[in-house]
Amino acid sequence: MVDVPQLVEQARQGRPRAVARLISLVEGAAPELREVMATLAPLTGNAYVVGLTGSPGVGKSTTTSALVTAYRKTGKRVGVLAVDPSSPFSGGALLGDRVRMSEHASDPGVYIRSMATRGHLGGLAWAAPQAIRVLDAAGCDVVLVETVGVGQSEVEIASQADTSVVLLAPGMGDGIQAAKAGILEIGDVYVVNKADRDGADATARELNHMLGLGEARAPGDWRPPIVKTVAARSEGVDEVVEALEKHRAWMEEHGVLAQRRRARAAREVETIAVTALRERIGDLRGDRRLDALAERIVGGETDPYRAADELVDGLTNGG
Amino acid sequence: MVDVPQLVEQARQGRPRAVARLISLVEGAAPELREVMATLAPLTGNAYVVGLTGSPGVGKSTTTSALVTAYRKTGKRVGVLAVDPSSPFSGGALLGDRVRMSEHASDPGVYIRSMATRGHLGGLAWAAPQAIRVLDAAGCDVVLVETVGVGQSEVEIASQADTSVVLLAPGMGDGIQAAKAGILEIGDVYVVNKADRDGADATARELNHMLGLGEARAPGDWRPPIVKTVAARSEGVDEVVEALEKHRAWMEEHGVLAQRRRARAAREVETIAVTALRERIGDLRGDRRLDALAERIVGGETDPYRAADELVDGLTNGG
Repeated sequence: MVDVPQLVEQARQGRPRAVARLISLVEGAAPELREVMATLAPLTGNAYVVGLTGSPGVGKSTTTSALVTAYRKTGKRVGVLAVDPSSPFSGGALLGDRVRMSEHASDPGVYIRSMATRGHLGGLAWAAPQAIRVLDAAGCDVVLVETVGVGQSEVEIASQADTSVVLLAPGMGDGIQAAKAGILEIGDVYVVNKADRDGADATARELNHMLGLGEARAPGDWRPPIVKTVAARSEGVDEVVEALEKHRAWMEEHGVLAQRRRARAAREVETIAVTALRERIGDLRGDRRLDALAERIVGGETDPYRAADELVDGLTNGG
Repeated sequence: MVDVPQLVEQARQGRPRAVARLISLVEGAAPELREVMATLAPLTGNAYVVGLTGSPGVGKSTTTSALVTAYRKTGKRVGVLAVDPSSPFSGGALLGDRVRMSEHASDPGVYIRSMATRGHLGGLAWAAPQAIRVLDAAGCDVVLVETVGVGQSEVEIASQADTSVVLLAPGMGDGIQAAKAGILEIGDVYVVNKADRDGADATARELNHMLGLGEARAPGDWRPPIVKTVAARSEGVDEVVEALEKHRAWMEEHGVLAQRRRARAAREVETIAVTALRERIGDLRGDRRLDALAERIVGGETDPYRAADELVDGLTNGG
């Protein structure tokens, strides 16, 4: 039996193994999942959640790593959730990247967790928010969620952050790729990384045009900044942090932060509820009620819609 | 307003436009959907539903067309549901095929309907069974459901027929393809089409081996036959019909037909119920209850799991 309150206490004291254990419990849908979530609830809400997404090769992990360094300089505790099987955080990339990450691995103020695409019901949309909650409750001031912006669920996760950062790089036909993947719409801050390469200005201009940033906006509207970086040399990274802080301040001023967090919580509840309902129906296979309904359909006494109504009513009156 | 009873009456009198209209109503989830399904219910249960699946290029449509001809010779009314965007029934294939199909198009004893992959909730798994019900109620003795055996839902539809026919062709590495797609397990009858080509015997032998047909079976067990055909010249097609009739007789003798139909009905009910529950939750977006729950989560007063419980309880007590 896992002693959940003790584990949570250890996590809050900054013990990385306790944090890791808690994340494993919530992402694996362990029997303790509900107890963990209930224990964490009053401890959450402090972390600023930043989503980073972009096509493979734009330098997401390098940027994430540079951001970790920047935030650590100001004394903040940082959590990293890498939802990307090719991320060096998941051990799947170039040696140079891994070396860069390994600085953080020994820093007690940094938690790094990778999360591969999961096969079970609800998938990433279900598991990622739980892991964020653990990092939040464990005392992270900032949680960086790195997702590869190619799948629907990855884009969804990034868009559910407090602030979404969309990364591009010059010369990858990247604007079009990003537009196709639907990540252009979700950015609060845009980063053109590898800005020392040819075409960085063109990419920034193209982006500026595609986003309609030249157009007039209502006063008080957020105008997503485009920041040029060379993350591998930490150039421009302080400007990214500055842009993030500005966006955060803007959200707080306009009530957007609370609104986004409510929307995120609502999505979480929905996902969990749908999963639960689906499981309840799944449990009915071989159940006499479903068998009896099927029998009546085959006999022409009822139709699948009326049968489904009966089934749903049965479920909702105590299962 | 659609006069559903009149439409059903016309469909039963053999008016193809009435059949087409009914299928459009059920696959489009029209407001009349429930009335249509309720009206059809007592009229269903007569059609023998045969699923045909196999990789692109094995000759599914040609075989389907030849089967239509064979069944028409015995005076049976035949429905064809082509769940395959590349099927000539959907107008997407070679001219030669289309000419072959067009013979049937003018035959009042044949209904042909194509159904592309649908984007909405529940997808094909939801729409195909409804269309089969319409064809059944309209008086079809046989409904042939042609699916391209590459997607999970297509395989599922084929496996939900009374009898599943799996088609292969020589020299396509087809056995392995079929095994990968999971269609090898679902066949009640196997057809090696294009049997005038080199390698037909090898394909049949390979299949025989993969299916373990040489092994001993319990008496009374169904041993899937392997029929060689050249569907383009109608060779072997009568043998396919014979195999189908044998399988049907075997199913009736052993209570398997009723059992399969009950299982099919149960799956239908499940799919509809899950869709309905999902929609109910979807309706709650912007609802005060969900908003209030989200607010409490953000405030740390509750966690997403307890909130989901409340939501599900709320749904099941009258929505």
